[in-house]
Amino acid sequence: MKLFFEPKRVALIGASTNKRRPGNQLFRNMEACFGDDFYPVNSRVDKIDEKVCYGSILDVPAEIDLAVVFIPASAVPKALEQCAEKGVPRVIIESAGFAETGPEGKALEARCRVIAQEGGVRIWGPNCMGLINVHQSKVLSFMASWIWQGVFTPGVVSLVVQSGMLSAGFLAHILGRTPFGLSKVCSIGNKMEVDETDLLEYLVDDPETEVIAMYLESLERGRRFVELARSTEKPIVVLKGGRSSFGKKAAISHTSSLAQDARVMDAALRQSRVICVRGMTELLDVARCFGVAKIDKTSRARMAVLTFSGGGGVVTSDLIADLGMELADLAPPTLSRLKEVFPEWMDPSNPVDLYPAYAKRGTRETLRHTIEAVMMDPGVDGVYLHVFASPARRSPYDYDLMARLMGDHGKPIVVWVMGQPETAREVTVEFEKRGIPTVEEVSRGVRVLAALTMRT
Amino acid sequence: MKLFFEPKRVALIGASTNKRRPGNQLFRNMEACFGDDFYPVNSRVDKIDEKVCYGSILDVPAEIDLAVVFIPASAVPKALEQCAEKGVPRVIIESAGFAETGPEGKALEARCRVIAQEGGVRIWGPNCMGLINVHQSKVLSFMASWIWQGVFTPGVVSLVVQSGMLSAGFLAHILGRTPFGLSKVCSIGNKMEVDETDLLEYLVDDPETEVIAMYLESLERGRRFVELARSTEKPIVVLKGGRSSFGKKAAISHTSSLAQDARVMDAALRQSRVICVRGMTELLDVARCFGVAKIDKTSRARMAVLTFSGGGGVVTSDLIADLGMELADLAPPTLSRLKEVFPEWMDPSNPVDLYPAYAKRGTRETLRHTIEAVMMDPGVDGVYLHVFASPARRSPYDYDLMARLMGDHGKPIVVWVMGQPETAREVTVEFEKRGIPTVEEVSRGVRVLAALTMRT
Repeated sequence: MKLFFEPKRVALIGASTNKRRPGNQLFRNMEACFGDDFYPVNSRVDKIDEKVCYGSILDVPAEIDLAVVFIPASAVPKALEQCAEKGVPRVIIESAGFAETGPEGKALEARCRVIAQEGGVRIWGPNCMGLINVHQSKVLSFMASWIWQGVFTPGVVSLVVQSGMLSAGFLAHILGRTPFGLSKVCSIGNKMEVDETDLLEYLVDDPETEVIAMYLESLERGRRFVELARSTEKPIVVLKGGRSSFGKKAAISHTSSLAQDARVMDAALRQSRVICVRGMTELLDVARCFGVAKIDKTSRARMAVLTFSGGGGVVTSDLIADLGMELADLAPPTLSRLKEVFPEWMDPSNPVDLYPAYAKRGTRETLRHTIEAVMMDPGVDGVYLHVFASPARRSPYDYDLMARLMGDHGKPIVVWVMGQPETAREVTVEFEKRGIPTVEEVSRGVRVLAALTMRT
Repeated sequence: MKLFFEPKRVALIGASTNKRRPGNQLFRNMEACFGDDFYPVNSRVDKIDEKVCYGSILDVPAEIDLAVVFIPASAVPKALEQCAEKGVPRVIIESAGFAETGPEGKALEARCRVIAQEGGVRIWGPNCMGLINVHQSKVLSFMASWIWQGVFTPGVVSLVVQSGMLSAGFLAHILGRTPFGLSKVCSIGNKMEVDETDLLEYLVDDPETEVIAMYLESLERGRRFVELARSTEKPIVVLKGGRSSFGKKAAISHTSSLAQDARVMDAALRQSRVICVRGMTELLDVARCFGVAKIDKTSRARMAVLTFSGGGGVVTSDLIADLGMELADLAPPTLSRLKEVFPEWMDPSNPVDLYPAYAKRGTRETLRHTIEAVMMDPGVDGVYLHVFASPARRSPYDYDLMARLMGDHGKPIVVWVMGQPETAREVTVEFEKRGIPTVEEVSRGVRVLAALTMRT
């Protein structure tokens, strides 16, 4: 598997001269990432831009570790035969038009499989967007360059997705708005040979991966998958596509996945401590925040909510109950400590509306005092803090104190950051670089807290 | 009620010189909105900035339509007596420290009620952030000026919220990220006299209001509320705080609301065609999109999904099923028309993954063709379009055609806009100014479609 992620010399079968075509995007991405170790194949032109092209893979004057194939499906078997002849050990087929299109495509895929197995070629795909190794800046995807350049940041979360969009457009959409460090991004398509279980096996041992997030339309080799999931302490977050009858039908025409019974699969995954989510944003939120927080799970989920709004406290309490968590019953000594920063007329309780205390003691002092009090309470398993980032207040938060409290007590703090967009982004960065995860929307934070505390 | 929203001369009892205090924010907001018709009251200073202050409301040398009160709760009865003596017909009490704090506060509130009733003063609040009349730029809230200035845009949605944050910070947070036209924003707090039913009555007849959104911790005079809701064609969207036992407890200490049984209330509201939601983002999304789309409800909800991603189509199908909607069964003539823009190997079906068609025919042409085909299909009640805004493609969408189709067929199109942030914002504005609502997150769009088509 390592050769897929760390090839030295690569070829592209289907380099295109037309700048609007994915085959040209692949050309540009691979040229940018591999330079002289990149060998484009195109039988109709000698050069693309200044780069020499070869008529077939057999003409390439070097040993190739990995070839990316992006040509019409019907031409793929011949290309595979040539790869086998050339001794190319790894091929990523990104072309569509295989099993997902019906019986003819299925037959074509079967033919490719035979050629590959007989020729000693291991295949990734078809009908996928390949992979990205973020730490090594290797992009083997036809994602447009402007989408990934300047947006990908090395980090600890690896993605395995049975959807091009989740490895490209949607992912970039999120990355353009939220800091998110990534390790490997794998789009597996029809997974003719390489499937999620192969990748789980690889990523469980990958030192650059600490959190694994997957979007799956089917689960192959479920027993082995569950064994691997049980064997690792790395959090695994799974979004299953095709939970409903409409979704199942859509999954068949997407990646020809015959979805298993979602409830059975869900139960097996949950028993192996996999966190199952229901939406794409939720998948990335939960994985991203595990990557930020690096926290061990606790067994209960009694939350303290620190807000600046009574209404925000009420709605958050409802959302906490929806996800099976509890509002912590604050101990009398904690309540006494909170009372010290509140005006006479107000007795604080959980959810704690800090607004009157802010007005009396200022934001920084109030937050230092209250967050320390609730984190020390043995009846609190996590804290949900709501802040409103204001350009008028400089350094209102003692980030270091919060990070220290989180480390000392082993309890997560999650922060919902509201406010003026630029300031909110600055505050987000400050929290996250110290390992305190943030969210942009109140219900997303509750979901993240559930995952961080209960691992469900 | 009109005098609350359109006062000519106003006073502020509790104008503060301390720039960090809400009483100073009120001073600045009212000074900016009313100028010479604003009379601040402060017994300890003669002037704030250049503005003359009066020792009490009795010293103000003009007839006052409305006074805002922001002084410690214990001093409020005396101020009310003076308002009655002066003949001030409307008072907004924004101070906290009343019924929400326990028995003493309840007694204080009862005393205020007697004074007001005997003195012919109508009271809004206490424990609230007052109101904003966006069309007339009248801000009677202690929200910081930098939060609202340049952010509020006149529009057709009015909000009634039992939470300061939903009328201030959280609202501004959303406004800073999404175009959102507002009419009246009402924070009603403990609603000693003016409650949501009074406001519903006013807003149902208000020509500047076409959509009404409410966050309520309790519902007073439910029967009358339901009658009013039934009497109007204006969409009413309600978020009920205190659905869970945790939320109920929090609501009592927030606005002293004894929450009714949420299920009974829900059922009554749904029967009167009120749309019930579960979160703050959902409340504003649904209300905002009704304001953009101005569409009559249809009776069924068979959705066509136009995406550029198979995975996006699968996940959207699941979310559609979650909310009780259906994926439309496209008619054979529709499928034939779609087929015209697809490559030979691909038979389109719903959800329609347009990616192969985009590659063959370009974005603009493909979208014109397919959206026209699905909108004409009698088995389609609405369209969910996913787009990825690219700075590299200029004018890829025929916005006018889509707006015309939506008007002609009376079916909503909702667009999930992904992509590079600035371009996404431009695309959003283009869609919305033509009445086509957009969302930033896939599940939020599904929620909006359910509301627009089924009014639930």
